[in-house]
Amino acid sequence: MSTSYRVAIVGATGAVGNTIMSILEERAFPVASLKPLSSHRSAGEILTFKDEPIVAEELTHNSFDGIDLVFASAGASVSREFIPTAVEKGCLVIDNTSAFRMDTDTPLIVPEVNMHAAIKHKGIIANPNCSTIQMVVALKPIYDAAGINRIVVSTYQSVSGKSGAAIVELIDQTVSALEGRPIKQELFPHQMAFNVAFDWPFSESGDSEEEIKMANETRKILADDSIGISATTVRVPVFFAHAESINIETGRKLKADEAREILAGAPGVTLVDEPLNREYPLPVNAAGEDAVYVGRIREDTSIENGLNLWVVADNLRKGAALNAIQIAEILDRSRV
Amino acid sequence: MSTSYRVAIVGATGAVGNTIMSILEERAFPVASLKPLSSHRSAGEILTFKDEPIVAEELTHNSFDGIDLVFASAGASVSREFIPTAVEKGCLVIDNTSAFRMDTDTPLIVPEVNMHAAIKHKGIIANPNCSTIQMVVALKPIYDAAGINRIVVSTYQSVSGKSGAAIVELIDQTVSALEGRPIKQELFPHQMAFNVAFDWPFSESGDSEEEIKMANETRKILADDSIGISATTVRVPVFFAHAESINIETGRKLKADEAREILAGAPGVTLVDEPLNREYPLPVNAAGEDAVYVGRIREDTSIENGLNLWVVADNLRKGAALNAIQIAEILDRSRV
Repeated sequence: MSTSYRVAIVGATGAVGNTIMSILEERAFPVASLKPLSSHRSAGEILTFKDEPIVAEELTHNSFDGIDLVFASAGASVSREFIPTAVEKGCLVIDNTSAFRMDTDTPLIVPEVNMHAAIKHKGIIANPNCSTIQMVVALKPIYDAAGINRIVVSTYQSVSGKSGAAIVELIDQTVSALEGRPIKQELFPHQMAFNVAFDWPFSESGDSEEEIKMANETRKILADDSIGISATTVRVPVFFAHAESINIETGRKLKADEAREILAGAPGVTLVDEPLNREYPLPVNAAGEDAVYVGRIREDTSIENGLNLWVVADNLRKGAALNAIQIAEILDRSRV
Repeated sequence: MSTSYRVAIVGATGAVGNTIMSILEERAFPVASLKPLSSHRSAGEILTFKDEPIVAEELTHNSFDGIDLVFASAGASVSREFIPTAVEKGCLVIDNTSAFRMDTDTPLIVPEVNMHAAIKHKGIIANPNCSTIQMVVALKPIYDAAGINRIVVSTYQSVSGKSGAAIVELIDQTVSALEGRPIKQELFPHQMAFNVAFDWPFSESGDSEEEIKMANETRKILADDSIGISATTVRVPVFFAHAESINIETGRKLKADEAREILAGAPGVTLVDEPLNREYPLPVNAAGEDAVYVGRIREDTSIENGLNLWVVADNLRKGAALNAIQIAEILDRSRV
């Protein structure tokens, strides 16, 4: 690799791809050249990078010639088909999809939590699921200080986690609902306007794919298979930022104040925890921001070492694009 | 009391009061006469009962003369001021507010759960908080079958639980958000359109009043102070019906199928639990219905006896008005 990178973005016309382009620009990531890649359908779409128009090209197996660094976020099946080619051609791939996350050979990285594990990569570094990333950023400092035996989490996930088109569908459904017209649903299995619902698919055990991801990815990132995790993942009619109601059992008793102190100084975390002053993390405030916001820290006296936290982050930024770029930045800084 | 009742409704012009009037009519409750009572501000408002117009009268301490049965839902401070007068004048009061719920002398009743406790009333029977009612209807059959040691619940509560005006505020905020205009908030401490947030007030411990209610009321209704309960109550931009993600630790292991079997035959419960066929309880489906819908029953393997449930019910109906009227119906049927 050179000191600046020839970058390709797989899924450049999607919500995460768009955000990757914005953040590369915002953070002045050393981009020598940028190649936005898309499906056949979206190829030709004109995007903007550093105030210049740039045309999305159709992704093929030849797209990776002369590329150093690939950010992939076009879905697991696209990654499964094309990423091995990119690796063969010598690219480093930071993959936002679930395709390789649980592979033993693929590090699953959240920079604040387990950047050390990235070193053993074989061409692919996986970016975790959005709801997992914000949870582990908030929990790692507590895990280090007191241990975590069990996590019970219920999520409040925004529609942008599904896709950019899902944002449009929520707007359309909302207008239809307010006007008393029939509500069309295409991307979501259920009405999302003024409703809360679940995403597909489900396993035979009754857990959704997202719920299984949260459990497995969290254990892999914390490198601790002993943590018990029960997740219930719920989609809510919010555009940007996921919220999570997290109940944990720690290894030793943590008072709320001690947990606040630990989190106030933690990397990537912004503590917002003054409920008496109406201050706690809210999706509308986290949207467009980089931090993982933590608040409503309360001792849960129903067990000896119980603690509640409310964690909110922008799912397109820290939950996807920002985390991927942070990984690339640290690898860049650690080049020898 | 006679075989039909002279009924007064305190808070008749509010969302719950309105629903009480509809349900009295729907269920042909034996109403000899109906007196809708309201604040000075809303007095004179014309309501409808059995297709006839009926005028709201201002609530005073003389409002209860010649009344047998009072349904009160105008807020705790109104109940604290006026309900003792109604009791003195010989009325039976079913109080929807939190004013007397935790008083030792006041039974706190959900008919499917603890109707036996109503017998010792001294003029007031308290109706629990909406989020408590649906939770205990779903959990009582499991409690009886296997015991419950601990409950961790996160809620997804609709805005109608706050007031009828809150519904209008959510509509206004939604239109403003879609049109890019500034969002006005009067009733809610935060933006509710396309956001999730918390309600006031909070205690010094950091728990909200609603969270404390859920814990204390559940223990009182189940008459079991040993149950550990941790609640996180969250408002979501939904008009009608509350949803709850409930994680419990039972006294003995319950397989998901066994829990389903228990709940399928339980009073007040409708089981909707076929996630592979996209069937689970949803707020938009529960709105306007009487049942407490239970689904997404999953064994939680993070502890020995863990179980997850997703519980949805119309907060204005089973969560308030319907529960109150069911109490009155059973008392009527049990007259000697």
